[in-house]
Amino acid sequence: MPLKYAVIGTGAIGGYYGGRLANSGKEVHFLLHSDYEYVKENGLRVDSVDGDFHLSSVLAYNKTANMPKCDVILVALKSTNNKLLKELLPPLLHKDTVVILIQNGLGLEEDLHEAFPNLSIAGGLAFICSSKIGDGHIGHFDEGKLNLGSYSCSDVRLLDVVCEDLNQAGVEAHVLNLEKARWMKLVWNIPFNGLSVVMNATTDKLMSNPDMEQLLREIMLEVIRGANAVGRGCFDISENYADDILEMTRHMTPYAPSMKLDYDFKRPLEIEYIYTRPLLVAAKSGCLLTRIFVLEKQLMFVQSQYLKGEL
Amino acid sequence: MPLKYAVIGTGAIGGYYGGRLANSGKEVHFLLHSDYEYVKENGLRVDSVDGDFHLSSVLAYNKTANMPKCDVILVALKSTNNKLLKELLPPLLHKDTVVILIQNGLGLEEDLHEAFPNLSIAGGLAFICSSKIGDGHIGHFDEGKLNLGSYSCSDVRLLDVVCEDLNQAGVEAHVLNLEKARWMKLVWNIPFNGLSVVMNATTDKLMSNPDMEQLLREIMLEVIRGANAVGRGCFDISENYADDILEMTRHMTPYAPSMKLDYDFKRPLEIEYIYTRPLLVAAKSGCLLTRIFVLEKQLMFVQSQYLKGEL
Repeated sequence: MPLKYAVIGTGAIGGYYGGRLANSGKEVHFLLHSDYEYVKENGLRVDSVDGDFHLSSVLAYNKTANMPKCDVILVALKSTNNKLLKELLPPLLHKDTVVILIQNGLGLEEDLHEAFPNLSIAGGLAFICSSKIGDGHIGHFDEGKLNLGSYSCSDVRLLDVVCEDLNQAGVEAHVLNLEKARWMKLVWNIPFNGLSVVMNATTDKLMSNPDMEQLLREIMLEVIRGANAVGRGCFDISENYADDILEMTRHMTPYAPSMKLDYDFKRPLEIEYIYTRPLLVAAKSGCLLTRIFVLEKQLMFVQSQYLKGEL
Repeated sequence: MPLKYAVIGTGAIGGYYGGRLANSGKEVHFLLHSDYEYVKENGLRVDSVDGDFHLSSVLAYNKTANMPKCDVILVALKSTNNKLLKELLPPLLHKDTVVILIQNGLGLEEDLHEAFPNLSIAGGLAFICSSKIGDGHIGHFDEGKLNLGSYSCSDVRLLDVVCEDLNQAGVEAHVLNLEKARWMKLVWNIPFNGLSVVMNATTDKLMSNPDMEQLLREIMLEVIRGANAVGRGCFDISENYADDILEMTRHMTPYAPSMKLDYDFKRPLEIEYIYTRPLLVAAKSGCLLTRIFVLEKQLMFVQSQYLKGEL
């Protein structure tokens, strides 16, 4: 029996991966918010470096109460909205449903597990440059890989099936050690998300300055030290990975990371899971991430300047 | 015989202290640049929390070649212009002249000593909130102390006389261990100068945010650790000093540090002596100042964005 999918948060990430799966013939139910009416009428359009497509008829919903129970739930909300999951998820769950949090940072699965102790939870790491460029319209500019890892899956083989579905849909996907995969993703996210906001600059502008490139690299190495302190030999990230990531970014299309877009649109920043939790987790393993601490505090300040009443 | 003074750089600092000395009856020769004509015609006005005054007749010059040899030269240039001293100083020097660099940072005297190996050099640390508010017009808003220390003075008693002159002119002044005094000043300068630029905010705005206050304090503690590593028991700054400085700043008039003004007016930033040299000096003593490294690189990036052609 083919897997039945739900997407919670049909934006740059959820719209892209859910759209790919639907485009390959999978049954995908999309929860939408601001552009629910538009997508219901006009479908979902994806302009992608791997081939454009348009889903003229989309299973679109504006509340999960109206959605069917699904086998796989792809959560691609901003992590600042994860507190909504407690209400959003229950209508979608049957006893074997796996919820995959396609989000950045550490501690996401832990927090969801606390709210749903018996739920099969996995994480997803999206290596993709994509953004919402209009109502029901996603742009995919570079990369595209999605890595998955189990946190508390009762049947881990289910993730292999999801991987196959993604591969068939034209998405490179692998199942990895989740903790290691999350830290590896942070090697990019921590320097680039934070500095793109604090310096108000896109990746290419940051990379074209030798001082900034040195800072990006030092912060990457600090993330790797934190990861390896936490991994304690169970996993290990090589320092060379920093140079690989820099090299990849150098050849990437100029890009505003998601946190930069959140900043530009004066939305809450995903500081908690991308900065605060990694700092705490590493400190518990005796590793003070001092450069990242600077960035965290700077981001808190930046955010406080435009979310004054709302925090 | 009363000391004869010269002021190189008649701005917020040189104009204030030189003005105070002249106002108390001392012979002070001022080198001016942009407002030479104005000051020659109209004199120098100082609006000060310690009492306003106006010098109607000022010994004003636009080149040092026209100035007499002096006993004490107060250098209050931006340190980014210190390369000019090699040409500016010689006409003013007799064999006992002392040059006092009233500037922030480390390595200033070292570099001047390299250019003038036999010169009596001292440093000056100004604890003052002042700025140029118009042609020939200085505003003094808070604090005002000037601490002096010898670097290579052939007669250190001369600095005591300068202190007395300053005291008589209404300026609190002391002679201290220069290296310790420079590091103590950096405890304020490094966090506040840098973060006021990177966060584009005045001191009060920075201090009113709890996250930013925590960051300011952590950076202060890092400066103190750097100082004490370099001091190696010859001098020592207590960690309590960070809290004293925070408390002082909390009660200070809202203030844009000089580096913030340089940034606002798109002038070169004093990164070299306030950040790069302390980082190097501390690293030589085995102390990596990682939080300050982040700030240094961020400032280099900020500056590169508006000084593109000029660097």
